Amino acid sequence: MKLMRLGAPGREYPAVLADNGSLLDLSPVTTDIDGAFFAGGGIEETRAALRSGALRELDSTGMRVGAPVARPGKVVCIGLNYRDHAKETGAPVPPRPVVFMKDPGTVVGPYDDVLIPRNSAKTDWEVELGVVVGRRARYLESPQQALRTIAGYAVSNDVSEREFQLDFSPQWDLGKSCETFNPLGPWLVTADEVPDPQSLGLHLSVNGITRQDGSTKNMIFDVAYLVWYLSQYMVLEPGDLINTGTPAGVALGLPGSPYLRPGDTVELTIDGLGLQRQTFGQA
Amino acid sequence: MKLMRLGAPGREYPAVLADNGSLLDLSPVTTDIDGAFFAGGGIEETRAALRSGALRELDSTGMRVGAPVARPGKVVCIGLNYRDHAKETGAPVPPRPVVFMKDPGTVVGPYDDVLIPRNSAKTDWEVELGVVVGRRARYLESPQQALRTIAGYAVSNDVSEREFQLDFSPQWDLGKSCETFNPLGPWLVTADEVPDPQSLGLHLSVNGITRQDGSTKNMIFDVAYLVWYLSQYMVLEPGDLINTGTPAGVALGLPGSPYLRPGDTVELTIDGLGLQRQTFGQA
Repeated sequence: MKLMRLGAPGREYPAVLADNGSLLDLSPVTTDIDGAFFAGGGIEETRAALRSGALRELDSTGMRVGAPVARPGKVVCIGLNYRDHAKETGAPVPPRPVVFMKDPGTVVGPYDDVLIPRNSAKTDWEVELGVVVGRRARYLESPQQALRTIAGYAVSNDVSEREFQLDFSPQWDLGKSCETFNPLGPWLVTADEVPDPQSLGLHLSVNGITRQDGSTKNMIFDVAYLVWYLSQYMVLEPGDLINTGTPAGVALGLPGSPYLRPGDTVELTIDGLGLQRQTFGQA
Repeated sequence: MKLMRLGAPGREYPAVLADNGSLLDLSPVTTDIDGAFFAGGGIEETRAALRSGALRELDSTGMRVGAPVARPGKVVCIGLNYRDHAKETGAPVPPRPVVFMKDPGTVVGPYDDVLIPRNSAKTDWEVELGVVVGRRARYLESPQQALRTIAGYAVSNDVSEREFQLDFSPQWDLGKSCETFNPLGPWLVTADEVPDPQSLGLHLSVNGITRQDGSTKNMIFDVAYLVWYLSQYMVLEPGDLINTGTPAGVALGLPGSPYLRPGDTVELTIDGLGLQRQTFGQA
């Protein structure tokens, strides 16, 4: 299933994209796609409603697509989780996952404008496999168990300001938490439809030029391990978002460091998870 | 004014501690003390309700004290913001604020048990001045303007696991985000009653032995500067919490590194902001 949220920012309502391409109103099942929805068995209810034909078609003409989950309780990010990206940034391959956080308020829709912060010279892109937590996860016993706590997957752009991130302090969160810095979506694809999260191609282009072309098979720490690992140190709650790292090809690592400028358009896709497109503006 | 939240975790209701020491039910004014309360002029409404005598006394016998604000949208922390603490940790005095984040789910009540994580050998304390945001803050013009966006102040314990924080990755958030790692309260003291946030003594003891005895006058970056600075890089929203750094005296910097063990009791006070006490248990 592909879950969506449509409408003005902060007033999105829930929908489901059926296999035949029709978009169905999910409001008879839930008021929103959020932590409470996942914790209360919302995915199973949605499946049952689809089967019973209880959901009506939605006229989405002209409607904004929001992030497919409501504002997460937290956004946890994994740094340097692809060998080629670690290499391009000049960092050694980490012996453990590098964990940092992003302001959850940065999550926006997949086609929303992204704002280059004031006084920014180094705004950069990062296509990532986003993992949305479906069940409370605390001291999970194994990576295998971890997979069962995942609600689904979505394309995530972990937009980053490299000067704020790397030069202004040894801690990265400052350059990861700027307004609009986490486009998510267009869909949340439920975990049952992603049998192997470690075989997905990730692609990103800027103004039509391919910049990132990787595969989740090259993750250093795979999704199951990451969720298990995080659960040893923090409590993951339904609706939380995990950005699992980016492959090579960010501006920081490219010849000439082609950082984003107002008017640039970035397109991101992950196999089976849809396409994002953002135009960058100036804050 | 001193705002409080009382009741079982997740079901706290709002109260106000009057100047004469009586505790008054704030539920005629709001259902909770959260971002919407601050953004909607809740502090002014509470003041008016107090003046008019509209609030009834509350029988709080045996009731748990929760954190004085509902789960924040984000918890932003400032590292190494006191010269003596930077020195004890062996870090240089930073030229800019060191900014990192904590899982907002770590916020608990001031007398709740704090859990030492599994496989932890280095759980540590940090008394800090907690700043709660009252108005949306985005690219503020000056530190002076920043002061006007603050709802109030509270005692905050930025509990930290030093091995997770410093040895497991170069990013600190992992060792800051363990379950129950941010006791807050007992009160939120509104900003009008804290005319000078840079003249407050901070004190912390472990099992009756004084460990931290500092003053906010020794902050490297003061509260007004920090809020202004953060607003240049992220959007601060009503209800967000900022932990402004800790003075010297943490276990990491003490002879023999006396990290916390199950059964230890920690007491924290800040002048005018009340007292916290936690007993540490095992997760």
